[in-house]
Amino acid sequence: MTKAETAADAPKTKREAPATRASFPHFLPITTRWADMDVYGHVNNVVYYAYFDTVVAEYLMRTDGVNPHESQAIGLVVETRCSYFKSLTFPETVEAGLRVTRLGGTSVRYEIGIFKQGEDTASAQGYFVHVYVDRDTRRPVPLPDHLKIALAPLAV
Amino acid sequence: MTKAETAADAPKTKREAPATRASFPHFLPITTRWADMDVYGHVNNVVYYAYFDTVVAEYLMRTDGVNPHESQAIGLVVETRCSYFKSLTFPETVEAGLRVTRLGGTSVRYEIGIFKQGEDTASAQGYFVHVYVDRDTRRPVPLPDHLKIALAPLAV
Amino acid sequence: MTKAETAADAPKTKREAPATRASFPHFLPITTRWADMDVYGHVNNVVYYAYFDTVVAEYLMRTDGVNPHESQAIGLVVETRCSYFKSLTFPETVEAGLRVTRLGGTSVRYEIGIFKQGEDTASAQGYFVHVYVDRDTRRPVPLPDHLKIALAPLAV
Amino acid sequence: MTKAETAADAPKTKREAPATRASFPHFLPITTRWADMDVYGHVNNVVYYAYFDTVVAEYLMRTDGVNPHESQAIGLVVETRCSYFKSLTFPETVEAGLRVTRLGGTSVRYEIGIFKQGEDTASAQGYFVHVYVDRDTRRPVPLPDHLKIALAPLAV
Repeated sequence: MTKAETAADAPKTKREAPATRASFPHFLPITTRWADMDVYGHVNNVVYYAYFDTVVAEYLMRTDGVNPHESQAIGLVVETRCSYFKSLTFPETVEAGLRVTRLGGTSVRYEIGIFKQGEDTASAQGYFVHVYVDRDTRRPVPLPDHLKIALAPLAV
Repeated sequence: MTKAETAADAPKTKREAPATRASFPHFLPITTRWADMDVYGHVNNVVYYAYFDTVVAEYLMRTDGVNPHESQAIGLVVETRCSYFKSLTFPETVEAGLRVTRLGGTSVRYEIGIFKQGEDTASAQGYFVHVYVDRDTRRPVPLPDHLKIALAPLAV
Repeated sequence: MTKAETAADAPKTKREAPATRASFPHFLPITTRWADMDVYGHVNNVVYYAYFDTVVAEYLMRTDGVNPHESQAIGLVVETRCSYFKSLTFPETVEAGLRVTRLGGTSVRYEIGIFKQGEDTASAQGYFVHVYVDRDTRRPVPLPDHLKIALAPLAV
Repeated sequence: MTKAETAADAPKTKREAPATRASFPHFLPITTRWADMDVYGHVNNVVYYAYFDTVVAEYLMRTDGVNPHESQAIGLVVETRCSYFKSLTFPETVEAGLRVTRLGGTSVRYEIGIFKQGEDTASAQGYFVHVYVDRDTRRPVPLPDHLKIALAPLAV
């Protein structure tokens, strides 16, 4: 890919550097869809967040063994953010890298990198903060122990 | 709405305060959809960004008179962020407030507040940074004059 | 609108005729979104179905007073269909017309027309068939009486 | 899967039978996403159509070598339909089967089956009719020869 094809390469000097694959302990392949593209022929900025909550939810449902439809403590998203370095398109399969950078008393901060196949630096990256609350009262609750155990392999 | 119904109210003390309507010069009503909800019965975190780029694009297309399918300078999204204070649901019509807080040489930073009808503080808020690039070379270009004129009423 | 702007006008001779507004007892305005458009600059074919289940769900939740998160009998979608006559775009507000054309023992067939503002013939139309099942057993159940009452004004 | 877990099994007697894998010459794996689910915890009916146009577009872009952003003849969707037999969920990878059942002078009818991994009968199936039109005049044009060649392996 030439410089000219890179979205907004110039502003990068003032911006955070794209993460590399080595900094993510876990990856999930996600297939892009026709409808992910907007009129410019690139994956729309909104869709990256669908990749974010997909990699987080898939990890939690598979490793934590918790049923999100039934568990009493549920993770509410209180903040998300994404930086876009290089455009994605359809068709392609991207890989979403996942790591945990902060494990608080009632919250978890996930960081996600979106990688094109065969590329070592992220095309986009961001974070996703969950606060755990009681399903009924919606008040913050301590992170369940089984969750801390499930997240341990993601800590960096 | 009682405290108990407020999503993640406790962490608010450490977080930014929700913006009020008076700080946004422009509003766009957006109707929520059944499919906006996730399994918890609330609008999914991803969907807020669809509201964000809808209010920005609607304003630009209507006031700037520019056709996004044809203009030579196009706005690429390089960064987005959202804080979630209170959940939204379906059916309801939300109002997206819009303001411009930074007009750089080649970039614009939009801030958006999502308000429930009849409420003065935002249920969610965030920003959206556009860098203008040439449609063909994808290299940053100065903000077109017509754009600066179109955005002037949004500056705060 | 000239012939040349009409999507696929020629095949219309062999196709069903677009419905007119008079044939729908109920309408719901729906705001299109930037992300509804695909690379051709028109609302993607998938999104019309999001309009369909939005107008159906909004009607049911408002008139039937039933909470879809809690009711024991839930409507499962078993078949949907859409014919596209004329393209939609962003920004615009469309109006979704709704009528009920079949009320069976355990099922309801809704027909939906999507109208551009100020136009009397549908830009797209289709149907949506619900079969009512028990939330837990997922076996068909008779339509609840309160539902039949709620749907009466939609019968044509 | 027991009877009781099958969505709307009873009406099946009056409905078309689910297709089997052997009737589709081509398959594409598609990863479901968290946001595909609605409040009932199943993939929303709308999303199946996103799977439909993804398998069609992927096949066309890969085998026909045509750039949808530039080709003069473009396929407009004039009709879509889907029957839902069994619910899908997240996380899972589904496989979309594709076949062509009618190749007209200016139109193509694709049929799609959505299969769960390891299952031989479709969880949902439907069709998708493209009419080819000129990008500028939007009037129907004959199917390009390269398209007919590309679609030949899908004919059943």
